[in-house]
Amino acid sequence: MSKLMGQMMQQPLLISSLLVHAERHHGEQEIVSRRVEGDIHRTTYRDLAGRSRRVANALTTLGVQAGDRIGTLAWNGYRHMELYYGVSGSGAVLHTLNPRLHPDQVVYIADHAEDQVLFFDLSFLPLVEAVAHRTKTIRHFVLMTDRAHMPASTKIPQLLCYDDLLDAASDQYHWPSFDENTAACLCYTSGTTGNPKGVLYSHRSTVLHTYAAALPDALNCSARDVILPVVPMFHVNAWGLPYVGCMTGAKLVFPGAGLDGKSLYELFESEKVTMSAGVPTVWQGLLTYVETNGLKFSTMKRTVIGGSACPPAMIRTFGDKYGVHVLHAWGMTEMSPLGTACTFKARHLDMTQDQRYEVMARQGRAIYGVDMKIVGEDGAELPWDSQASGDLLVRGPWIVSEYFKGEGGNPLQDGWFPTGDVAKIDADGYMIITDRSKDVIKSGGEWIGSIDLENIAMAHPGVAMAACISAFHPKWDERPLLVVMKKPGADFSREDLLAFYDGKIAKWWTPDDVVFVDAIPLGATGKMQKNKLREQFKDHRLPTA
Amino acid sequence: MSKLMGQMMQQPLLISSLLVHAERHHGEQEIVSRRVEGDIHRTTYRDLAGRSRRVANALTTLGVQAGDRIGTLAWNGYRHMELYYGVSGSGAVLHTLNPRLHPDQVVYIADHAEDQVLFFDLSFLPLVEAVAHRTKTIRHFVLMTDRAHMPASTKIPQLLCYDDLLDAASDQYHWPSFDENTAACLCYTSGTTGNPKGVLYSHRSTVLHTYAAALPDALNCSARDVILPVVPMFHVNAWGLPYVGCMTGAKLVFPGAGLDGKSLYELFESEKVTMSAGVPTVWQGLLTYVETNGLKFSTMKRTVIGGSACPPAMIRTFGDKYGVHVLHAWGMTEMSPLGTACTFKARHLDMTQDQRYEVMARQGRAIYGVDMKIVGEDGAELPWDSQASGDLLVRGPWIVSEYFKGEGGNPLQDGWFPTGDVAKIDADGYMIITDRSKDVIKSGGEWIGSIDLENIAMAHPGVAMAACISAFHPKWDERPLLVVMKKPGADFSREDLLAFYDGKIAKWWTPDDVVFVDAIPLGATGKMQKNKLREQFKDHRLPTA
Repeated sequence: MSKLMGQMMQQPLLISSLLVHAERHHGEQEIVSRRVEGDIHRTTYRDLAGRSRRVANALTTLGVQAGDRIGTLAWNGYRHMELYYGVSGSGAVLHTLNPRLHPDQVVYIADHAEDQVLFFDLSFLPLVEAVAHRTKTIRHFVLMTDRAHMPASTKIPQLLCYDDLLDAASDQYHWPSFDENTAACLCYTSGTTGNPKGVLYSHRSTVLHTYAAALPDALNCSARDVILPVVPMFHVNAWGLPYVGCMTGAKLVFPGAGLDGKSLYELFESEKVTMSAGVPTVWQGLLTYVETNGLKFSTMKRTVIGGSACPPAMIRTFGDKYGVHVLHAWGMTEMSPLGTACTFKARHLDMTQDQRYEVMARQGRAIYGVDMKIVGEDGAELPWDSQASGDLLVRGPWIVSEYFKGEGGNPLQDGWFPTGDVAKIDADGYMIITDRSKDVIKSGGEWIGSIDLENIAMAHPGVAMAACISAFHPKWDERPLLVVMKKPGADFSREDLLAFYDGKIAKWWTPDDVVFVDAIPLGATGKMQKNKLREQFKDHRLPTA
Repeated sequence: MSKLMGQMMQQPLLISSLLVHAERHHGEQEIVSRRVEGDIHRTTYRDLAGRSRRVANALTTLGVQAGDRIGTLAWNGYRHMELYYGVSGSGAVLHTLNPRLHPDQVVYIADHAEDQVLFFDLSFLPLVEAVAHRTKTIRHFVLMTDRAHMPASTKIPQLLCYDDLLDAASDQYHWPSFDENTAACLCYTSGTTGNPKGVLYSHRSTVLHTYAAALPDALNCSARDVILPVVPMFHVNAWGLPYVGCMTGAKLVFPGAGLDGKSLYELFESEKVTMSAGVPTVWQGLLTYVETNGLKFSTMKRTVIGGSACPPAMIRTFGDKYGVHVLHAWGMTEMSPLGTACTFKARHLDMTQDQRYEVMARQGRAIYGVDMKIVGEDGAELPWDSQASGDLLVRGPWIVSEYFKGEGGNPLQDGWFPTGDVAKIDADGYMIITDRSKDVIKSGGEWIGSIDLENIAMAHPGVAMAACISAFHPKWDERPLLVVMKKPGADFSREDLLAFYDGKIAKWWTPDDVVFVDAIPLGATGKMQKNKLREQFKDHRLPTA
């Protein structure tokens, strides 16, 4: 094929350009953080830019080279944001570690990533003291605080003070230009089986994802928004919101370690937050607090819910009781993370509220840039008819091609990434996750989706959380077992809950049994750990057996 | 610098992927066209995709190779849209010719581009008959109509019928994958001096521009919009809206040749248009029609105005009388075209309506992806203080690096493209065009911006159109001369208009004279041709001389 090339400027898509744009166009805009030190801290995009340049200079002082991985163990806050830009912008790789992981996993991941420096919040001093001598490659430990909050003594060798480090560095720095496919950030999946695997984002994938994320049919962010990301910056880059912030000049509000209902609510109100984002389990805590105290949201218009399927009952509560629109979204670490968002099409605007809630319960349609398809067991594509359910595959410029260091081999099938989710898609292209493929309940050769069963349970007024898992059945191989955590003071029986399923679902999908538990185990990113429940109930004898 | 590359999918940004997305996710969405044949035509994104694939196959049949330029002379309509995707998607280059140019210029541009095929609307049959035998490279002429509308006889050799061509082609076609920097479209600037120069967009620049254009802080387009691009598809790709359509799945309404107030208004209403886009001179016609007939807009919420500075009086009329928000935007052919859009920041939301109108009169802030700066005569950057006025320079991935075939040499200054506009920028980053550098009036060594003077005249109730040009003055070298076209029936004098400037502007900026004309010449893209006026009034004797 003969070639004629366009004659437009060759300018690489670099993360530093987001910061430069924010400094130039939104220099006065605020970034507000609840610090782990206890107070509320206020800064601006202009100061963010200056301090990010100091970070870049400090990294040079610490001997960091382009491509080196720099670890963080930190909450959402301005210092973490400075590292987002200072590290990636200078050509090093920001590696956000999940502090909720077991210390052994933290050590494994830091070693696997070969982190050279570790930046961490005061909250994680005990964790880092426990792991510092076990990690193999970290040459410098930096406590993200000021001199006043440095510990008098510590087991960590030559512990550095973040604010001192920045004060000693110049704020003059010229962001380097390089290939946009250069690695920018590293994020490990908290796989429930096997070792965690690293996803290595590039500058290009991050900038493209940021454009897509801000679109009206995705998260719809503008300079007029005040965004509070509850989703942690150590969890797939807070779904890209720190980058969306710089692209749009939205005011950012960081909650630090204060993720309880009261702390979040106070920030929503005092900072006039218009938009938030997080996993369903966090919102449960917030809603309980707001409900218990008879409060309202004065400025919050919408919240993005993803990470796990959002129970329809929660979508309705937010909408009907609080006037907050829930934007259901879906993605994963391997997808930077956004794949779909449940924004309306024109024809939905004329629907009744009930019909709209039905649409909102779906995970949404693919954002331009992401191709998706569902396939059957033979790999053939299935129709988008709301009925056919199959393995969900995706591809696009912000989707993983292989894991860091080639871990786990080639993950792709014919160029598509298999998400491990099982889904159906309606004729309008709205995708509905029915299950994780490993969580599907295989009853007599037929599949039962656990999420539908959980959503029904969640609609029961006495249920705080519900997980549906497979239990052994001598005739059907597997049958659904519902594991339920009641709301405080709720009083209802196994039979009441099973009767609640009548007429809501095909009879044979109804769970065979219900067990009540005090707590359902949550993973490091707030998802229910069904593998632990399956282990716990592996000898459960169903009454139908 | 050692390198570590990200491990994300390498997927080129190709125009065909916009169409694939639209077909898959918005297949049922409508595309409505007022055809030059006279009727209203309705199709869908699904059919657009199928017919675009037929275009690709038809091009192969016609012997078109990758990189070949394919000319169009066409209004906004579904067939033109099919060519947008069929031509670029298959690896050829869509060259949109401006039918308002002089036939000599059409010949020059078609020859310079070495167009292989020319597709044209029925309206341009006389034009093509006049130029067909003069062009050197066009091997096939295709009339964009059906068999019934083909002329019985024509001077054009072997004239082909578009619909026949498509009917004969298969709708099965696999869009090829290639380097995203491959040329996709070619657009010539209608330069007032020198030969027209071609700007060769790439797939990459077009897709990035599309992401940016759809952002909430740019044109803010979603699947819920009904977009009527008045700006022609032969004028910088209708500001990217045909691409935004596929990216978002918005309903598109194409006005064909019906750009008069009545035809436009009827389409706005019958198709429930929510958003439009065009140059100020078009809106003047629409407003006159609506005003004269005492009409209202039922669904239109906003319109993008660019191409020339929009008079503040027009922004107010749209807002106050019709509830239509004017989104002032700025760009140029060399910029794909979007550079700035005047969307609000959070703090503007609390302003009075008058203060907001003042902001809306500016051309807006840079969309992320575009860097801009103003420089003085020494090339040094000037401050953003609403005062300093200088040459406006831009750079970014959808800005020209050189013209087609290197015409005119290297246009860049240190990697920046000089726009030829003179502007000031306020502390919030909102840019205000004060003039084209060639239109600036140099009075005694000081610059007077003609746009401010025109805007004041346009606010006078009797003025239909006003152009301010420099006239010779023996003492000051140049002084402002106002050329005015009155509204029908308006009755006011030269002195009335000059008195209208009192208190609105520095005394020494007030025009030295006013002349009334029956018409102000407009160029092929609807801009006032001040060079013609300067020629016409080159011997004008100012009363102050």
